[in-house]
Parts: sequence; structure tokens; C-alpha cells
Amino acid sequence: MPEAPHPQPRPLSFWGWGYADKFPGVWKRRLLATQLRAVLGFAAGKPRRPPELSRVRLSPSRIEPPATLGHVCSGDPEDRIRHTYGRSYRDLVRGFHGDFGSAPDQVAFPESEADVARILDWASTERVAVIPFGGGTSVVGGVEADVGEGFAGVLSLDLRRLDRVLEVDSTSRAARIQAGSAGPVLESQLAEHGMTLRHFPQSFEFSTLGGWIATRAGGHFATLYTHIDDLVESIRTLTPSGVFASRRLPASGAGPSPDRLMLGSEGALGVITEAWMRVRPRPRYKSRASLRFDDWHAAVEATREIAQSGLHPSNCRLLDGREAKLNRVATDGSSVLLLGCESADLDVASTLEQLIEIARGHGGRCPDGPRHLRQEDGDRRGDAGTWRKAFFDGPYLQSSLVSLGVVADTFETCCTWDRFPALHEAVVGEVREAMKRVCGVGMISCRFTHVYPDGPAPYYTFLAPGEEGREIDQWMEIKRAAFDAILDRGGTITHHHAVGRLHRPWYERQQPDRFGDVLGAVKRQLDPVGILNPGVLIPPTV
Amino acid sequence: MPEAPHPQPRPLSFWGWGYADKFPGVWKRRLLATQLRAVLGFAAGKPRRPPELSRVRLSPSRIEPPATLGHVCSGDPEDRIRHTYGRSYRDLVRGFHGDFGSAPDQVAFPESEADVARILDWASTERVAVIPFGGGTSVVGGVEADVGEGFAGVLSLDLRRLDRVLEVDSTSRAARIQAGSAGPVLESQLAEHGMTLRHFPQSFEFSTLGGWIATRAGGHFATLYTHIDDLVESIRTLTPSGVFASRRLPASGAGPSPDRLMLGSEGALGVITEAWMRVRPRPRYKSRASLRFDDWHAAVEATREIAQSGLHPSNCRLLDGREAKLNRVATDGSSVLLLGCESADLDVASTLEQLIEIARGHGGRCPDGPRHLRQEDGDRRGDAGTWRKAFFDGPYLQSSLVSLGVVADTFETCCTWDRFPALHEAVVGEVREAMKRVCGVGMISCRFTHVYPDGPAPYYTFLAPGEEGREIDQWMEIKRAAFDAILDRGGTITHHHAVGRLHRPWYERQQPDRFGDVLGAVKRQLDPVGILNPGVLIPPTV
Repeated sequence: MPEAPHPQPRPLSFWGWGYADKFPGVWKRRLLATQLRAVLGFAAGKPRRPPELSRVRLSPSRIEPPATLGHVCSGDPEDRIRHTYGRSYRDLVRGFHGDFGSAPDQVAFPESEADVARILDWASTERVAVIPFGGGTSVVGGVEADVGEGFAGVLSLDLRRLDRVLEVDSTSRAARIQAGSAGPVLESQLAEHGMTLRHFPQSFEFSTLGGWIATRAGGHFATLYTHIDDLVESIRTLTPSGVFASRRLPASGAGPSPDRLMLGSEGALGVITEAWMRVRPRPRYKSRASLRFDDWHAAVEATREIAQSGLHPSNCRLLDGREAKLNRVATDGSSVLLLGCESADLDVASTLEQLIEIARGHGGRCPDGPRHLRQEDGDRRGDAGTWRKAFFDGPYLQSSLVSLGVVADTFETCCTWDRFPALHEAVVGEVREAMKRVCGVGMISCRFTHVYPDGPAPYYTFLAPGEEGREIDQWMEIKRAAFDAILDRGGTITHHHAVGRLHRPWYERQQPDRFGDVLGAVKRQLDPVGILNPGVLIPPTV
Repeated sequence: MPEAPHPQPRPLSFWGWGYADKFPGVWKRRLLATQLRAVLGFAAGKPRRPPELSRVRLSPSRIEPPATLGHVCSGDPEDRIRHTYGRSYRDLVRGFHGDFGSAPDQVAFPESEADVARILDWASTERVAVIPFGGGTSVVGGVEADVGEGFAGVLSLDLRRLDRVLEVDSTSRAARIQAGSAGPVLESQLAEHGMTLRHFPQSFEFSTLGGWIATRAGGHFATLYTHIDDLVESIRTLTPSGVFASRRLPASGAGPSPDRLMLGSEGALGVITEAWMRVRPRPRYKSRASLRFDDWHAAVEATREIAQSGLHPSNCRLLDGREAKLNRVATDGSSVLLLGCESADLDVASTLEQLIEIARGHGGRCPDGPRHLRQEDGDRRGDAGTWRKAFFDGPYLQSSLVSLGVVADTFETCCTWDRFPALHEAVVGEVREAMKRVCGVGMISCRFTHVYPDGPAPYYTFLAPGEEGREIDQWMEIKRAAFDAILDRGGTITHHHAVGRLHRPWYERQQPDRFGDVLGAVKRQLDPVGILNPGVLIPPTV
């Protein structure tokens, strides 16, 4: 095999979130357990020893790619282990216990679209299931080789060698980007042109453009164009039936949108290889403020008024008292509304002042006043605020908690404002009851990650003491309570975490009758043998 | 038959645009011909006598609905004539000549969703083609009974009796509206709740919500959310296979969007019966200005900078010198940029000032200065500005021109900014050449109806002297030249006029390879017999 063109000098954890060296040692985790006890009111377990790669046992690979694909394929155990799971709670627990039973048989690292085409041809002929793999950060079982019966084997298709920004059109503010580009990789290439995509999901450091498109990722902006969907100008996809490529267009009224079919297709309809994306100059004006509310309901009303104001803040995150404590943004139980505005050309100070006025009208206090920043063109480090660091480090905490035996996870939804109070009450009530039932105790907190004129996207975190060996069952019972409450109260099973294998039963309840058949018919056209990510999104027809 | 629940006291033209009484008499049309000669440089023909309804001859109806549908079906010749065409140039010419050869055999006026279901059941069983009909304003042959072989007959399904706003959720700013509601009908019902949809396509007076959704109509706003697509919260559709209804959600990341499949489905996948739409309070602050530019290219650059500024004007229409003359906005050949901002809660004067500053930086002059209006809550007549009146009256002019023997039509597209100069040059050059070839002379003008950060939506008008009996051939040759130029230069065959039967050959060139098969597979799932609007969007499989 040739050398990887972009070696990663900093090793990633093979079981947990992100960089391996960020997993804390025993003493640090003991300290964490102590701190948590004070916040959560229950004791975490003792730090357990993380797994060792060399001790993981895999069954032998069942497939052998042809010689023509040998240079981009690997049956190496480490490659197979590293492509077994995403990063859901269940994945972390199984990985932590060294259980990689569903490892793929082969991992391919295509270096060109032609490689991808050859792999799909071979896989269709040999009936090999193909799992498109980007950053491997799915929290819904979207990249797991759990494909059911009827396949000769499973190949994980790692697209991270397709990681170049191929073209930048500064006039139209668009860039053609390969789908395997991870966040920092594409941002650093765009920065050479003074541009940015400004799509920062929590997985930004590792997840890829293709993954964002396939899962309809939610990004940086709390209002207006928040999903990756709205940043897409055109998509190029390889399907087992051939290329499926849309025309580069700012907008079109010609028939149902082909791009909207690929957005959210989760690797089940084709392999996204590149896309023209809408980019923008880096922001130079930034203003932000933090508002505190004694009353959660008043804070929700303030947020609704802001979402409906037409002022379009770039950040508008409402944290309830528990969430604010967990993130050390406020320790007195207040709800906190984080507001931010940004622009490349326009001073946004007065916009922020108007937002603060709205919040004050609902009892919000702004003890530290607004902060107005002006960044010089060359300054690329200004984004690294405290919130940003805490935001990107959040998933690391989950890996530590797994090692402390804590059942720790999040889930998210979106609903209309009129339904939010009842949905929120049901979710919090039923998750608390489930935690009490299966773990004895537990806490749940809420924040809004995105807000729309017609409703918020609430994001919940729950933490409960796990029982060794039973954690996954405990977790699943809590999740089930949450998902049922969401579906019963008019929410979506996911605002930006995708469907994958985890959410599919609730997705099937949510989708229009007959839409499953429609997706199945589309799949049969584009993937006649059914090799692409079987079991995700669309029920297996076998 | 029972009386229509909402009688239309003001009769509509059976062949031309809009209200019959708005078609001018001979003397007025003579005056128009004289005025046009000065602007266009060629002479229009003599005013011809419009057709008479009583003289139109139809072939006998080939189908008879069952007794259970008798109360909502009509084989009356006038009903059949009024549902034969949309309002494309070709439709006007054929209608003007009393040619209604492709009249549907029956017209149905369902009064409930249950009626629609019964009609679809009967039509599927009897193999009757069903053409969903809203305002009948299609300019692309979208409602014409040109369905090919293999059907027992054709039924036009007029949905205008389903015209109620069923629910208003003021908290989430959304309303559940029946699909047959025409613009003024739904706006007056929303106004009772202090709300507005603010979707004003040029056909607003007659076209319906269902038609807007089925054709991805473009509306009032020149920037941000401009297509009806973005105002949709959920859609309810009746298909021959059953109900296809999405969940009311502000946003979702759960799989490909089912709504985006129905948006642009043009009556070929199902009959839209109602939708939850995002509404808003009526604007109270409005600011507007008119900028003049000596140089078209400078005006385009100003418009691009505005589109990329993040200031999101509600109006941003750039008219070239000819278009400005035609609309009597400027007579000296200047290009004119119409800018407007509006808000329910925020004074938008300073936003408009910033927009004017940008335009001035490119040589724009603002001789009349900005106008800032503040409307009192009760004032509902403030929208009726000069531009608005001219805008809604535009299509009436076309009917008059048809009667004067002028080949008069429009077409529109959207492309990225980098491609616009070459596309514009090619379109103007090739349309001029085609007009010269087939009509001897002609004029073409351009305006931008909508603008995006990554490109404009140019809208072209052409006028040329027609030769009696050959007008449709002349028109088609000019249109073909335009469509080829657009497709060759990277545009879309339509930004907001839909595909219909007219655009289909170019739509097939534009769409991704395999997307036609995908749409066909979707259609077979939802409409197994293929009765819905055959020949539109999807090639007939028979």
C-alpha cells in the first residue's frame, strides 16, 4: 500500500471520542467523578481501565477485494477496528469493553472518484455491503456494519483521502469541495482564499463535508440558514447505477430538488464525492452577550420573540439552569441566553443591542454587558472563545463518563412553539421516570441549539449512574422513553443527528405513510442490489 | 348541482388573463399599438376581435362520472373551455382563435378531501387522466389536457372550493390553509388574525396555495426565503395510493425531506389538499428607494454586493434600460434598481441607507431619495404602490398584445454570478437573432426578480411582430433559442415558472442523469396507474 497522502500525526482513539491523548488518566478522572457528584447528586463509579488495541479479537475477514483494488483496500485488524463504530453512547461502551464483533471485513481508502466507482462495481457484483465512512462520528449507528443477512461481507468506505478544495469561485462565493474533507481541512484551504464555510457542528474537528450532507448536519448559525442543506449549491454522488450530479444553481423551480433527495440520504442512496458549497468571507465584526433569567418560561418567551424578530442572530442558545451549571456558564440556577451577531462588512453592535432589549423585556439581565469585537483580516484565532472550546470538548467528557460507569448521552428534536411546553414537560418527566426506574436516579438538562420563527430545536443531556454490564440496556430504556415522548408530542426524532440504525423505528412512525415505500423505490433505482448502508434509513427488503 | 359556495361575481376571461372586463376595447388597444411603436420601434398589428364563448366548438365528452360524483362534476361546455389551458403565450393565441381542441372531458369541483379521494379512486379504476387545477395560470402547459394515448378521458380537478384557512397558530406563526385558496382569499382570512403569508407571485390574484407549492412559486421577497418552499411547514397530499402527509416541523434532519418531494411535483405525484404555512404579522415599517445607473454592468455589480451584504432587502429588483422604459420607471435608458425593506417591529430606515450606500459606491444615483413609511396597524391598503399595480397588471398587457398580433412573452432563469455575464450575452444575442430571423425585428429586456448571494434570477421579456397564423411557430423558435442558450450557459430552465409540458425537454437536459428514473419510480409508488397530470415533469411510460 502507498503511504497515506495526509498522515495524521496525532493518533485518534480507537474506541472513544477524538484524539487519543485527550483521554484523561486515572487521577484526572477521579477528580471529575468528585466534581460531578457535587453537580449531579450521585456518585460516579471508579475509573475503569480503557481497552487496549492489541487485545481486541476479530473474526477473519470474509472477503478479498480483487487485485485492481488492492492498493486502496485493507483487511488490517486495526483499520477494521477503527471502522467498526461511530461514537454513540452504545458504541463507546462496546468499544470500551473491547467488543468489536461487528467489524467490517475490509476497509477501502479510495484516492479518486474512479476508485469509488470500481469499488461499487465490485461490491454490486459480489454482493458486498458498502458503508460510506467520513469522520466516523455518527451517534445513531449510521456507520456500523450491522447489515443483516444476505451479504458476502462488509466493506467500510473511508472517504477521507478525498479531502481537497478543488475550486473557489470568489465572485459567486462558492467552492467545490471533496466530500472526504474534514472541517479543519476544508476551512484551512478556504482560508487561503479569505473564505469560510462557517459550518461548525460539534463534531467539526473530525466529521466531513460528505457526512454533513448525508446526515443534514446542523451548524454554527442558530437562526436563518442553519442546516448544511442551505449551504449546498450542487452535489455530486456516485451510485451503483452511475453518477448522479446536480447543476450548480443558486436556486431553481424545476421539479422536486434532486439535492434535497441526497441531503439526508445517509449513505443509502449513493456515495457523495463532492459538492459546490456556498462560502463567505470571514467575519470581522462580532458582538455577543450573555443574558440571565430567573424564570425558564420567561427565557423561552424571550427566545421566541428573538427568533421571530427578523434580527437573525448568528448565535441564540438558551441553556436551562442545569445546562448552564454543567457548562459552568452560571452556577446559581439561572437560565442563560447566549446571543451573538457577526458580519464580514457590517457593524453588528446595534443589532445586538436590539436583541438585548427584547431579552430585557422578558426579565433578562445582562450583568457583563455586550462585547463588541473587531477582528483584523489576518486574525484567524478569534473564534476560539470559551464556549467554543467547551462546545468542541463536550464529546470528550462523554468518553470519560463511560469509563466512570455513567450512562451519559444527549438527544435532540425540533417542534413548533405552541407544542414546546407540553413536549418539554413530557420529555423531562418521562426521562426522569425512566432514569429513576432503571438507574435509581439521574439528571436531565436542556438547551436550544437552533431556533426558528415557528419553533425551537431543544437538545437534552442526561446523566445517570450505570450498572456494569447493564449500561446499554439502561441507556436504551431511557432513550426509548425520550423518543416516545418526542414522537407523541409532535417533535421530530432528530433535528441534526440523523436517523441511522438507532432512530429508525421512530423515524418510521414520523415519516408520511408511503414515504418508506417511496424511499425504497428510489433506492432500487440507484442501488439495485441494495449494497449501500443496508439497514440505515430504509428497512432491508431482504 | 348545488350552488358554488363562493360565487365569483366578476367574470374571468375564458381565453385571456384575469378579469374579462379588463380586456381593453378597440380604441384603447389602438392607442397601445401607437405607444408601443414609439418604445419598440416596430408596428403592432390592427386590433383583432376577441373570441366569443358561444362560438367555441368542443368534441363530446368521452367519460361520465358515476352518480356518487355527479354533484361535484360537470361536463358543461363552458366549464370544459375554462379548464382547457393555462395562460402561456401559446394558450392565449389558441384561446384567442377559439381553438379549445384539447378541452378536458369533465371538470370536477371537489368540496372536501373525501371528494378528491373518491375522484382519484374512480379515475384510477377507469384510467381517467386527472389534471389538478388551481388558478389556471400556468405559463408552461402545466394544466393542459395534453396527456397522450392510453386514457379513457381527461378530468380537470378544480380545487378552488377548498379555500379556507382552517387554523391559525399565532404562537408559532403558522396557519393551516386549504390548497385551493387563491392569494386574496387566503390573505383576507389571515388578515383577520393580523397575519400575512406575504407570497405575491405575479399571478397572486388568481393562483392558489396548492399551485404555488406544486410549482415551487417565487414570491414577494427578493432575498432570503423567496420560494414558497421556505414558507412550508408541512404538506398534506392525496395520492392515488392514499394520504401522504408530513409532520408539522420548523426543521428536521430525519432523512430526505418528504415536503421537498412534493414541492415541484406539479400535480404528477399527488393532489395537494392543504398545508401548514409560515405566516407573519403585517409589516408596519417600510422603506424604499429607486437607484439609477448609467452602466448596466455597474448596476449588476451593485446588486451582487447587496445580495452578498447580509442586509436582506425585501425588494431588490434590477431593471435594465429597456425594462425600465417598458415599465415607465425611467425613460432615459438608465438601469434602475428598486430597493425595499420592511418589518413588523423594526425601523428599517438605516438598513435601507446602508443599501443605498452600497449602490452609490457603484455609481448609483438616488434622485428622489429614500421613502420611509410607517403604516398603522389598521391600514391594509398600503401595499398598493405603483410598482405593485404595474406588476399585477403586466399579464393583462400580454393578452392585449396577442390581440394586436405581437409575439410577446417572458422567460426566466437563475445562474451563479460568475456565469451571468456570458449567459446574459448569449441569451440576448441568440434571442435577438431568432427574432430577426423569424419576425424581422424584436426587442428583449431583462430584470432581476430575485437575487441570492451566489447568483441572480434574471427574467427576460421579448416582443416581436407576429405573422397571423404563424405566431406560435415564431414564438417557439424564439423560446427554443432562449432555452438552449440558458441550458448551454449553466442556467436553470426555470427559477419559478415550473416545468410543465413546455420546459420538459430542457428539464431533462438539466436534471441529473438517473433523476428521471427516480421520479418515475416515485410516481409508480404513489400513482400506480399513472393518471396524474400525464406528460408533465415525467415522460409518459406508456
